[in-house]
This record gives sequence, structure tokens and C-alpha cells, in this order.
Amino acid sequence: MTAEFSFKLLATDGKARRGEVSMPRGVVRTPAFMPVGTGGTVKAMYMDQVRGVGADIILGNTYHLMLRPGAERVARQGGLHEFARWPHPILTDSGGFQVMSLSKLRKLTEKGVTFRSHIDGAPYEMTPERSIEIQGLLDSDIQMQLDECTALPATSKEIERAMELSLRWAERCKTAFGDQPGKAMFGIVQGGDSAPLRVKSAEALKAMNLKGYAVGGLAVGEPQAVMLEMLDITCPVLPSEKPRYLMGVGTPDDILKSVSRGIDMFDCVMPTRAGRHGLAYTRRGKVNLRNARHADDHRPLDEESDCPAARDYSRAYLHHLVRSQESLGAMLLTWNNLAYYQRLMQDIRAAIGAQAFEARAAEISEGWARGDIPTL
Amino acid sequence: MTAEFSFKLLATDGKARRGEVSMPRGVVRTPAFMPVGTGGTVKAMYMDQVRGVGADIILGNTYHLMLRPGAERVARQGGLHEFARWPHPILTDSGGFQVMSLSKLRKLTEKGVTFRSHIDGAPYEMTPERSIEIQGLLDSDIQMQLDECTALPATSKEIERAMELSLRWAERCKTAFGDQPGKAMFGIVQGGDSAPLRVKSAEALKAMNLKGYAVGGLAVGEPQAVMLEMLDITCPVLPSEKPRYLMGVGTPDDILKSVSRGIDMFDCVMPTRAGRHGLAYTRRGKVNLRNARHADDHRPLDEESDCPAARDYSRAYLHHLVRSQESLGAMLLTWNNLAYYQRLMQDIRAAIGAQAFEARAAEISEGWARGDIPTL
Repeated sequence: MTAEFSFKLLATDGKARRGEVSMPRGVVRTPAFMPVGTGGTVKAMYMDQVRGVGADIILGNTYHLMLRPGAERVARQGGLHEFARWPHPILTDSGGFQVMSLSKLRKLTEKGVTFRSHIDGAPYEMTPERSIEIQGLLDSDIQMQLDECTALPATSKEIERAMELSLRWAERCKTAFGDQPGKAMFGIVQGGDSAPLRVKSAEALKAMNLKGYAVGGLAVGEPQAVMLEMLDITCPVLPSEKPRYLMGVGTPDDILKSVSRGIDMFDCVMPTRAGRHGLAYTRRGKVNLRNARHADDHRPLDEESDCPAARDYSRAYLHHLVRSQESLGAMLLTWNNLAYYQRLMQDIRAAIGAQAFEARAAEISEGWARGDIPTL
Repeated sequence: MTAEFSFKLLATDGKARRGEVSMPRGVVRTPAFMPVGTGGTVKAMYMDQVRGVGADIILGNTYHLMLRPGAERVARQGGLHEFARWPHPILTDSGGFQVMSLSKLRKLTEKGVTFRSHIDGAPYEMTPERSIEIQGLLDSDIQMQLDECTALPATSKEIERAMELSLRWAERCKTAFGDQPGKAMFGIVQGGDSAPLRVKSAEALKAMNLKGYAVGGLAVGEPQAVMLEMLDITCPVLPSEKPRYLMGVGTPDDILKSVSRGIDMFDCVMPTRAGRHGLAYTRRGKVNLRNARHADDHRPLDEESDCPAARDYSRAYLHHLVRSQESLGAMLLTWNNLAYYQRLMQDIRAAIGAQAFEARAAEISEGWARGDIPTL
């Protein structure tokens, strides 16, 4: 770890990058996957387990935390790290995405967004300045600018308006964030599925000389090919000496393909959410534990895994827990899934270091395509 | 542990008893509290944690397991210990209690009970012989006779009929269980709130020379004083060299008062169920984490506890988790509650060993009466 927030590129392999994001609370090995800790908890997991599977950083949701328990309350408890007992780096989103997707009676102006809580209808105002203030109260290590994320499909006029607004908000967030050497505020590239707008957004943000750059507004309903095309266009515009974070992405396959285009950081609810719905991510693709084929199967999910959830519990037992809606089922499958995601990232980092990323990515994809072990 | 099921009385203090129930899978230190693992899982807990708080034995519910995943299926998986990854002793109930309280379209005859599953309406027959067969398929170490548990209040005629039927079923269960030196089948004293019927039941069961005796049909709606009166009457009739198990009991106070009357074993859903509803058992009584007084309280539930859930997490965080219905809230409070119950049993055992049970019980009760730490 370092006193100043910094990014070091350790190796490249094609466009794939291996690096380290360093800050006072720790080092994040990239490419990195950040488990989502929505409301100050990675659902159904103890923080020891999150750390144990290899996570260097988790994500906190500003929107959820500002509504409950409230940013000022978290600050009084010593910040989010202390509150949630995660002493390692935390990245927070700006709250903008959930304001747009979850809140009620939104009203968007140049100044910001007013909305009502989806929990109790209480009124809130979110501006670029308030978003940075909240993320500061949470004591977040990597903060995100407030942006307007356009759902796709959208007209290019609408995409451009939101992108331009997001650029002006980026400037205001930069000013509000000020000079905090141990922390970072990332800008967010918008521009929907429009190549020229993506380039324009990335260039404008690059000119602001921020400490890192996110790519937002993807994985919002468009085909994977569109997302990858936008990465092909955007990544080369971004400065190579800064970390690049693809927000809200994604499946293991999305991650492989995005790493190969130069992305360094990811977050997604998939492994945690899927774990609560009986789905396990494995080397052999996604396994649905609800399926009757597992009912009498004494074999574990993956006997070669280091994760106890994957290695030590029978599929028959996991099937029973899932069918019975027992919380231990969600606990074990979430654990398995986060372990698998972290193992994937470790595998990716090793392959980039060995200059063998594309070959390894192909092997990993073949494993998924091979599918689960044959039925007993 | 011993090859043969046995009970050793190590100390007595008044009517309170300290002992050891020993069997091939381990030793159960008594007085013992058995966490309830209804469907092959102690809800929201890893088995490592259940063991870690000091539990020597857990309880499995025959009714739940016979319906899902099915007793034959558990047997194919190597029995309940292997299936649920709990290699230590397991006690199973007979299934009778839940057949009466949960199933549909019950029909009771001398032979047994026919009923339909509360899950999918499938028809089942439960006889004394089938109950023992199922408990054998689960590979349960301590099995219970099938009995008919009468809800109170009830007429003495009704109580007597059910008690007499339970005695005939006890004989049939004893025959079905046969000679299994490493395991035990306990009879269950019935008789409702009638002293003469309780005595009659206990004497008849004693004459059967079973390996242990349960007291059933209490904590089913009657006042605590009635329950304690029945124990005052029943315990002296039971042979002192056999373990005594009070089924489905209870609060920490019920446990103290029952130990002082000669009970050795307990099980209850209270600590686990309360943990899922925001309630914490502590040295200072029950604490409701939903209460707003905890919202800004950085202090742990009990800084002197050995349990991380009680010692390392702030009340503010627990309050937030409970209010947000996060599964980690249920996980932590269940952990705290089982740790508290086990600590209470440890405390009770030590006090009996030191011939200081009544004084220690008074101190413990004073702690509960003192109430929670003052608001910040």
C-alpha cells in the first residue's frame, strides 16, 4: 500500500493489462473483481470470507447507504470500513444509477436530481457536490462522479444530452473532491452505443486528468457485441497509466472479453444474486442446484476448488438447502460464486503476467462450454 | 466417547445434575442445550460455528427430513451426520409433534397416523415402527419414541387416552429399535397437566428400562408454573441413572428452573428463531436490535463475550442489518444466541460441579433482571 493513490502497470499482453491500484488501505491487484456490498454487507457473507476468497476491494452503493442507515450516521460510526468491518479499500458508486432505477418521483435538472426514497418516500436531493460529500462521509477510497446513465436503446440526441451533462457534473465532482492524495475520484465515460459520443466523452474526461476512468452505461440491456464494440472504441482513448473500471459487468465471459480490451476493474451483483437463487458459477459453467439431477449426487460442486463451499458439501445437500429455501444454501452458493470469480481474476492476472492471456482465456471458455460433470 | 451408549452422573447439587451422555460419536456434557437443525441445517449457521460455540449435539426433525429430502435419500447420502456435515451426536424427534402441528388431513388410529405433507400434500403414514425406521435411516444417535402430544388445556380423559396410547407406542418403538448398543431410544413421559397421569406414565416407562427419558407435552401453552410442577412430580419417578430430556424448552429462565428440578437435556427453536427476528439473548436479558436506541450505538452486544457476533460488531451495524432485513443480521444474531445458550449451559455445569448451582442461578437471573446497558 502507498500513502498516495497510484496505479502501476505491471504487465501487458495484447491489450490486456495486469497492474496494481495502491492506496493507504491496501493494494488492489488488477484485473480485479469487486464484490458488491450494497448496504454495508456483501449479502449472506461474513467479511472474513469475502477477504478469504481473495477480494482486495468491495463496492458500496451510495444510494442505498444514504437512505439507510444514512451517510452522516455511517460517518459517526467511523466510516463504512469501520461500520461494516472491512478495513481494506472500498469503492463507492455515485448513487446516480440507483436514483434513476429505484427511486420515485425523480426530477432531473442541471443542478442535480431530486427524488423520493423507494423505502419510505422521504425526499432527497442528489447533486454532484452532495454525491462527493456522501462518498466522503462513507470514507470511500475510490469515489465516482455523479453521472446520468441512459438506458439503451435511446435516441442519439438523448444519449448526447446525458453525456454532456455527465461531463459538466464530472467537472463539478472534481472540484468538490479537491485534493485528497490517498483517495481517488473517477470520471465515467458515457455515450450509450454511439462511437463518436463515447470518444468525445472519453477525450473530455481524459483532459480533466482524473485518477481513474470508469466506463458506464453499458450492460444496461444492449447485446454483448455492442458493449465490446464500445470498449474497443473507448479504451484506446483512455490514458494507459490510469485504471479503467467497467461498471456493473458482468458474466465471467463478459469479464474475459473486457479484460482482453484493456479493462482493469469490474463489479457485478451476479455472483451474489445468483447465489441466492440456487445458481453456482464453476469452471464448467453455471450449475443450477435446483435441478433434480443433483438430488442424489454425493459429489461436491468442484472437488479441485480451494473454497469449502465448492469442495466440502455434496450437491445433494446443496440441492436440498436450495429447494428448502434454507439460508445456508444462499450462504454456501454466494461463497462459492465469489470464490469462483476471484479465482477467475487470479487466473487472468497470472496469464497476463505469463504473456499467455488469449490462450488461457480460450481454455477457460472451453471449460465453460464443456459443461457440468456428467450425471451420476 | 464410548462404544456403548451410556450416562454418567458426575455431580449433583440439590436436584440439579451434572453428567455425561457418551456414545460412539462423542460425549454430550449435561445439562446440555441442543440447537435445532430442523431440516439438516441449523438455520443461518455453518456447522463449524455450531460446534465452535460449544454444542455437543444437535437435534434433527424427523417430520421435516422425511418429507424433504426424504429419509431414504439421507440414508443413501450416508446418514444425516454425513449429509449435513455434523460428525457429532444427533438426537432426532419422532416426527409425531410436527405431524400433529403442521401436517394436513391427519387421521390417528391405534396403528399410527396418516397425514398429508404440508409442503406438497403427498400422503404419508407414520407408525411407531416407521418412526424408528426413519430415525435409523437418518442414523440418529438418540431416537425418540412416537407419542401423541396433547395440546393444553385438554380434558383429563383426553390426556389419559393420549398418554396410554403413547405408552403402547413406546413398547412398539422399543421392539422396533431392538438392540443397538451405541445408540439410544428414549421414552416420552406424557400426561398433560395431570399429576397422577404424569406419575403413571413415568412409572410405566421406567418399567420398560429404556436408555433415557424425555418429558413431553410441556411448553405447549401452559403457564411456566404448571410446567415446573409437572417436573417436580415427574423427575423423582424417573431413574436417576438415566438422562432426562425436557422437549422443546425453552427460555433461559425455563432452563435454569428445569435444571434445578433435575433435567439434563433441552432443545428449543428460540435462540435460532429469535435471531432471525432481530432479538439477541445476552447476560443482561433479551435485546431487541430493531429498537431505535441502537441506531447510533457503537458498542457491541457484549464486549465480554467470546463470540465474535457479540463482541466485534457494533449495535449500530446490527440494527442496520436487522432493519434492512440483511441475511447477515440473522446470521450474526443466531450465532450470538446459540453462543449465549451454550455459555449458559457451561455456566450451569460449572456451578453444579462447584456445588453452587442455586447461588449462581440467582446471579444469572439478576443479570437478566438488570436489563441491557444504559442508552448512550
